[in-house]
Amino acid sequence: MCQLLGMNCNVPTDICFSFEGFCARGGKTDEHRDGWGIAFFEGAGCRVFLDVNPSIESPIAQLVRRYPIHSKHVIAHIRKATFGGLALENCHPFQRELWGRYWAFAHNGDLPDFYPENAGYYRPVGQTDSERAFCLILETLRQTFPNGKPDLDQLWRVLQDVTKTIATYGIFNYLLSDGEHFFAHCSTKLCYIVRQAPFAAAHLIDEDVTVDFQELTQVSDRVAVIATTPLTDNEVWTAIAPGQLLVFRDGWPDVNF
Amino acid sequence: MCQLLGMNCNVPTDICFSFEGFCARGGKTDEHRDGWGIAFFEGAGCRVFLDVNPSIESPIAQLVRRYPIHSKHVIAHIRKATFGGLALENCHPFQRELWGRYWAFAHNGDLPDFYPENAGYYRPVGQTDSERAFCLILETLRQTFPNGKPDLDQLWRVLQDVTKTIATYGIFNYLLSDGEHFFAHCSTKLCYIVRQAPFAAAHLIDEDVTVDFQELTQVSDRVAVIATTPLTDNEVWTAIAPGQLLVFRDGWPDVNF
Repeated sequence: MCQLLGMNCNVPTDICFSFEGFCARGGKTDEHRDGWGIAFFEGAGCRVFLDVNPSIESPIAQLVRRYPIHSKHVIAHIRKATFGGLALENCHPFQRELWGRYWAFAHNGDLPDFYPENAGYYRPVGQTDSERAFCLILETLRQTFPNGKPDLDQLWRVLQDVTKTIATYGIFNYLLSDGEHFFAHCSTKLCYIVRQAPFAAAHLIDEDVTVDFQELTQVSDRVAVIATTPLTDNEVWTAIAPGQLLVFRDGWPDVNF
Repeated sequence: MCQLLGMNCNVPTDICFSFEGFCARGGKTDEHRDGWGIAFFEGAGCRVFLDVNPSIESPIAQLVRRYPIHSKHVIAHIRKATFGGLALENCHPFQRELWGRYWAFAHNGDLPDFYPENAGYYRPVGQTDSERAFCLILETLRQTFPNGKPDLDQLWRVLQDVTKTIATYGIFNYLLSDGEHFFAHCSTKLCYIVRQAPFAAAHLIDEDVTVDFQELTQVSDRVAVIATTPLTDNEVWTAIAPGQLLVFRDGWPDVNF
């Protein structure tokens, strides 16, 4: 199994605090040592850092922990390999282009016996069930909407359908974004917190680190952090219901579309 | 304009020495300050570091200079913007998937009035002429060989044809790799050096740094370094002839296919 971390905000924000705690689970406070990765959207651009080393030992993870990259959509993953060997091509998040935008995807769970037909455009490079699922999602979206990105409600419906189909194969918690919308699907375990004014101090579970967000934020800022399990021990995290596919926009789970 | 740096080897090698000199051209010894990027292939996997900051000031470039990532195929780029603004989505190398492999591409030159029809699978995310050229190359390869990667001679012929077509629009020096083959096209300016036994010391032009490769290598190692202009001042670099599309394999320009 693996763990997921996501962030969606109304203004570009760095993820250093959350990533610090998340990183510790990649070999220090937990056993997810088989690689890690993080994708930052910046406008239409996307940069993905990947490493097969445990996040707790990786010089690249150390850079990401210390260098504040500001983004409105971030997807991170620490891996404990089930399907697919220890290799760079099996590290999440995966990235592909659809409709002239980059899409990034990371998965927690496993999908035994999930080998969809490979008839289309997106072909997996690695050996993970996760990348196969990502390719099928993009394939389905592209075939259903060949001319470009549709309205969010249409997109959500098709994404929900293909997600339900894939989820019949196993556990399928995932984070998906194109830098405009941020999707979070809970199959078994995923939760989130929205931080907004009045901001308070937060304390990590996995490291003895506290940040007082009041000192770092503007009153209009809003940040949603999504994770497999809560990252802080003095805040209330909301569990996403199994089967639910949320869309985050501007740091908030959007249900009115 | 921009500058290119590539490396192709018979064993995974780090590019720290060459990148050190190349990096200096991104704001210190030269004016290519509008972002930079580097792609490392590791097996089928590929990781791309991108930044809109000048390479000379970028904390990510500093990491790449100091952290030896071993790879047989590396493509790097420092940018001086011509077409497309200063944005992450306009930084090279660009990356896409074709035939179940990642492909990375970086371009030096400009292609005024190059706006190919966008009828196919690969759609540019940014605004550069370079990404449009990359998309057309991949589109052409995919349409010509829909079932998968062909033999190198067939691939080379089609790549040569589409390259010639694109080169009629302007200056089109590029580096392209899928982690198996490494292509280098010279339109106006591109050179290379092959380092092999007996190894000697090399001294950078852009920084006062010398490395004695004899101390760092095995006798069977072979490394080709490809660059817009020579990176060292005590070695003989070979100019690639304008119009030539070389294929590097195992640290050597392969002409027998």
